[in-house]
Amino acid sequence: MAEEVVLLDFWPSPFGMRSRIALAEKGIKYEYKEEDLRNKSALLLQMNPVHKKIPVLIHNGKPVCESLIQVQYIDEVWHDKAPLLPSDPYQKATARFWADYIDKKIYDLGSRVWKTKGEEQATAKKEFIESLKLIERELGDKPYFGGESLGYVDVAFIPFYSWFYAYEKCGNFSIEAECPKLIAWAKRCMQKESVAKSLPDQQKVYDFILQMKKRFGIE
Amino acid sequence: MAEEVVLLDFWPSPFGMRSRIALAEKGIKYEYKEEDLRNKSALLLQMNPVHKKIPVLIHNGKPVCESLIQVQYIDEVWHDKAPLLPSDPYQKATARFWADYIDKKIYDLGSRVWKTKGEEQATAKKEFIESLKLIERELGDKPYFGGESLGYVDVAFIPFYSWFYAYEKCGNFSIEAECPKLIAWAKRCMQKESVAKSLPDQQKVYDFILQMKKRFGIE
Repeated sequence: MAEEVVLLDFWPSPFGMRSRIALAEKGIKYEYKEEDLRNKSALLLQMNPVHKKIPVLIHNGKPVCESLIQVQYIDEVWHDKAPLLPSDPYQKATARFWADYIDKKIYDLGSRVWKTKGEEQATAKKEFIESLKLIERELGDKPYFGGESLGYVDVAFIPFYSWFYAYEKCGNFSIEAECPKLIAWAKRCMQKESVAKSLPDQQKVYDFILQMKKRFGIE
Repeated sequence: MAEEVVLLDFWPSPFGMRSRIALAEKGIKYEYKEEDLRNKSALLLQMNPVHKKIPVLIHNGKPVCESLIQVQYIDEVWHDKAPLLPSDPYQKATARFWADYIDKKIYDLGSRVWKTKGEEQATAKKEFIESLKLIERELGDKPYFGGESLGYVDVAFIPFYSWFYAYEKCGNFSIEAECPKLIAWAKRCMQKESVAKSLPDQQKVYDFILQMKKRFGIE
């Protein structure tokens, strides 16, 4: 049976980028459908009636929602190429822990950097940098979080690299000055076609953030 | 090698209860260590330096943090008895989706029911009941979320049953009147020794919540 794979997505979403990278790593052809989040498609509402959010991965008509669940699903269905999760249960638990950390910390703290100002922003920036330093320590001297090759944590985290420039411009700081090893890791990931073709340009994300700031009245 | 399993926990935690149930389902003997969350042990801070939260599962000296990750770890390490996650990738993704839904919705909405009052509480109660009805629909006519036997979603969700009485008393409503099938499911789960021995008494949880309300000045 021919596989039918569709991804409902929105281009600046770091969550959608995760599934784009995982599908690219596995060499899966898929139909990309851009959603207008202010006018969601009937298909999106039908496929994710609980959260009504992108990304949604539709495999042979059946929806898989939530990006980390999608990446695990992709890894399990197409397990014969580019394994993302380690097979050892303890290493797997560790990878899941850091992906969960990224979900709980990085996105929210980063959002607070561009959505706030003054003292609130200063606090958000401090916490954001701390969270990056913490995950940088987990990387250590490995080329990837996954070790010698791109793994689950890399796929979960690298999408945020496309937002780094926007965080820096909004918060007036340099991530490279704070976390040089993390930037070296990000550049290493970007040399992979699966990553490079799945991430939008940093300037384009920054322009999008500027539009959001205008729309929400955050100047 | 003898397995050394330790659980750092706090008795009213629905998250800790998940790991207690999973360990009981697998028949794993473990040392239970109660934490004083206002004076956390050096072991807890050493084993979970990132979040400093319970539960922490320590298996042969190595920590696994975050309850759903623990349940998956337990299921993977002791895979020969009482499987919790289905083996089919799509069913597995669906189970992960609902466990994630419980983490994102049930706990927070339930907390808002007992932490707020007036209009804020009325909204929280309405949303909480909606979230319960939604997951009740997912249960359908199956005996368990896992089908014929207790599975991952059951383990993720049933701990909240020990909090139901507190939610009801604080919010002045009946979950059974709103979601009779869900209560029938909960009572079915409670007939299992693994569940019954892992959940505290509902009245004891309510007394704990009353203490919390007093401490936080919510009357």
